[in-house]
Amino acid sequence: MKASILTVGKEILIGSITNTNSKYISEKLTDMGIDVTRQVSVDDDLDEIVKELEYSTKSSDLIIISGGLGPTNDDITRDAVAKFLDRKIYLDQAEKEKMIDRFTRLGRTMTPNNLKQVMLIEGSEKIENKWGVALGESIEFKGKRIILLPGPPNEMEPMLDYYFANKSFTEENIMVKSIDIIGLGESIIEDRIRKMSFDDDSVSINTFAHGTYTEVKIIGKSTKKDELQFSIEKVIKSLYAEFDTHVYSENNDDVAGEIVRILKNNNLKISFAESITGGMLSSAITDISGASKVMETSLVTYSNDSKNKNLKVSKNTLNDFGAISENTAFEMAKGVKERSSANIGVSTTGEAGPNSSETEVGNVFTCIYFSDDNYYTKHYFFSGDRNKIRRSTVNRVLSQILFVLRKNFKE
Amino acid sequence: MKASILTVGKEILIGSITNTNSKYISEKLTDMGIDVTRQVSVDDDLDEIVKELEYSTKSSDLIIISGGLGPTNDDITRDAVAKFLDRKIYLDQAEKEKMIDRFTRLGRTMTPNNLKQVMLIEGSEKIENKWGVALGESIEFKGKRIILLPGPPNEMEPMLDYYFANKSFTEENIMVKSIDIIGLGESIIEDRIRKMSFDDDSVSINTFAHGTYTEVKIIGKSTKKDELQFSIEKVIKSLYAEFDTHVYSENNDDVAGEIVRILKNNNLKISFAESITGGMLSSAITDISGASKVMETSLVTYSNDSKNKNLKVSKNTLNDFGAISENTAFEMAKGVKERSSANIGVSTTGEAGPNSSETEVGNVFTCIYFSDDNYYTKHYFFSGDRNKIRRSTVNRVLSQILFVLRKNFKE
Repeated sequence: MKASILTVGKEILIGSITNTNSKYISEKLTDMGIDVTRQVSVDDDLDEIVKELEYSTKSSDLIIISGGLGPTNDDITRDAVAKFLDRKIYLDQAEKEKMIDRFTRLGRTMTPNNLKQVMLIEGSEKIENKWGVALGESIEFKGKRIILLPGPPNEMEPMLDYYFANKSFTEENIMVKSIDIIGLGESIIEDRIRKMSFDDDSVSINTFAHGTYTEVKIIGKSTKKDELQFSIEKVIKSLYAEFDTHVYSENNDDVAGEIVRILKNNNLKISFAESITGGMLSSAITDISGASKVMETSLVTYSNDSKNKNLKVSKNTLNDFGAISENTAFEMAKGVKERSSANIGVSTTGEAGPNSSETEVGNVFTCIYFSDDNYYTKHYFFSGDRNKIRRSTVNRVLSQILFVLRKNFKE
Repeated sequence: MKASILTVGKEILIGSITNTNSKYISEKLTDMGIDVTRQVSVDDDLDEIVKELEYSTKSSDLIIISGGLGPTNDDITRDAVAKFLDRKIYLDQAEKEKMIDRFTRLGRTMTPNNLKQVMLIEGSEKIENKWGVALGESIEFKGKRIILLPGPPNEMEPMLDYYFANKSFTEENIMVKSIDIIGLGESIIEDRIRKMSFDDDSVSINTFAHGTYTEVKIIGKSTKKDELQFSIEKVIKSLYAEFDTHVYSENNDDVAGEIVRILKNNNLKISFAESITGGMLSSAITDISGASKVMETSLVTYSNDSKNKNLKVSKNTLNDFGAISENTAFEMAKGVKERSSANIGVSTTGEAGPNSSETEVGNVFTCIYFSDDNYYTKHYFFSGDRNKIRRSTVNRVLSQILFVLRKNFKE
């Protein structure tokens, strides 16, 4: 089954916003075993929309359109689709009542143009919008299907999920499985997968970089369910063999979320002493709801003086080895653990650039400290600009923390 | 002048990556006064590319294509364009030598498929790639122009900038001006601009949200240069009148960068005591090169105990007013200023959710503290999920710091 995506709106064409809708819809359709063959964006222009429909309905069985369903004069997507299909538009009376209710409740005046948002094309199936006002709809014609959804991602995404929840568009069996890999870059992962060369046409493998981890998604498509199950299991087994301890989840678990979960389950507290990452690690952990149970205090110690005063990194260490060294990373992690009465202290120190100081740009040392007998120091060398080096440090340290926690504690 | 953008690659169609190239190219062309009428993404499929070229060259004068110029068998964009134009492809000998040199220097073996990346279409103008390997090119045909660029954004973006640096594609005069606004949400800004109703066809106004600030971009297009200058100045003047002290720059200056610059110029040091933002503010400042001159120490104090022990927030304050209160924000900011010997202490405390504790989700207090006679507390109420509330807090606090610095110190 082939699909096209059409996103409508001036804000996309002038580059005012990034088109995340196309990505979202594409990933969703791919997971359902549907081939997305084109993504198109055009202005709020009736003729352009009609022309694109004439083109894409020739090769696609499913066309998903988002944007241009709002109340303003610019919003003409529904009119364009009605024109293309040569069908009439009508007002949904039940939705109109709901809208009047809502406006009354909020004490606002409803202007007539708002009614545009609760109109539908004859013969369509309504897709309710619980997250906003403009209705979506699904229209069948000549064995094909056009789906209209509003443009705002916080409405479009749940409406799409809701609509597709119980739909199946293909005779084939579709199976999707993911495994999540930490501690290796996406390009290395991709390269190693390519070298594994599975020659099984029913299965495709794609990687999705999520910052702290890379998702390897296996999508199987076949009329024979049993064979498909077997093929996918074979691929997963090979991936486990290839990536070994780097595989940490099959559920797209967020790495920071996993860290917080394991710490909580084991009644552990963590503290960060950040130099190069300057607060990013603490922020990644506090981004997780429930972080207050596992982190009380963290420090950003940017100067040597601050490392010495706040973390008791000795002046000798700073002088002899430098602030960017394994020794300093060790003393920082130990220092923050002890002053904050945490169970684990984690430190980062390095040179993010753009100018190198005592050491080369990209040079990073980290330490995960439990005790003098149980600690993990790491030396990394990252390339890229300031932002990329800092981000790489955060991603690798979070990976490493999860890796170490899984080794030392129960889940 | 009308333009189309074509991005090529399976990773876009399966939703593995977000298409940032289309946005980047669109914004660039819009700034040059060129109307982008469509953005299209197709697979690495020769027929699809040719068909799109047949379609878009009918209505567009300029077609920019990115992606599919790499060394693998999938990469067939150049072949497709050559086929569409009915022209031959040749190897650029000079670039071949350079490539051999590079491979020799790096001690790597060059495989023949690498040469694909230094081939060009007959009669084209070469666009050098100093950021990667694959060449770009610009081809004129029948008064129209096709530009080919590689897919990786870190190559495509500078190549596009470089190519367009001294080009002009229109008879009209184009003028672009921006003003940057802090402390107001994008939707409020847009709404207020819409109400100002400039009726001048030569000028268009668009807003671009950049997190900490919103850029209002004024693009003027006219054959009459003097009148255009006058029109744009008139718009800018009205915008200044409307947004007053919220206008902070005309140069797309990054807010955190501006803060660091003003602090540095005035020999000031800043420290953060973060609860709800959990390290995000420190991280925004340390993201700026040279931050070590203005920040030595910051703290993430997540628990009440930590606020009391590390920042000397009194137990009475925590008991009587709660951790999420103006009083606690004040004592946190004062505490961190004093313990870190900085000139300015900044604090955040609030409820990010998802569950409300002592106060409602979205409730945030902040304080910028210079002295007991000079401090700024603020109470915000943000909507959205945990992530959005934390991000809004960071954006508004940074805006507020810049606002206060500009009021109290020289630039």
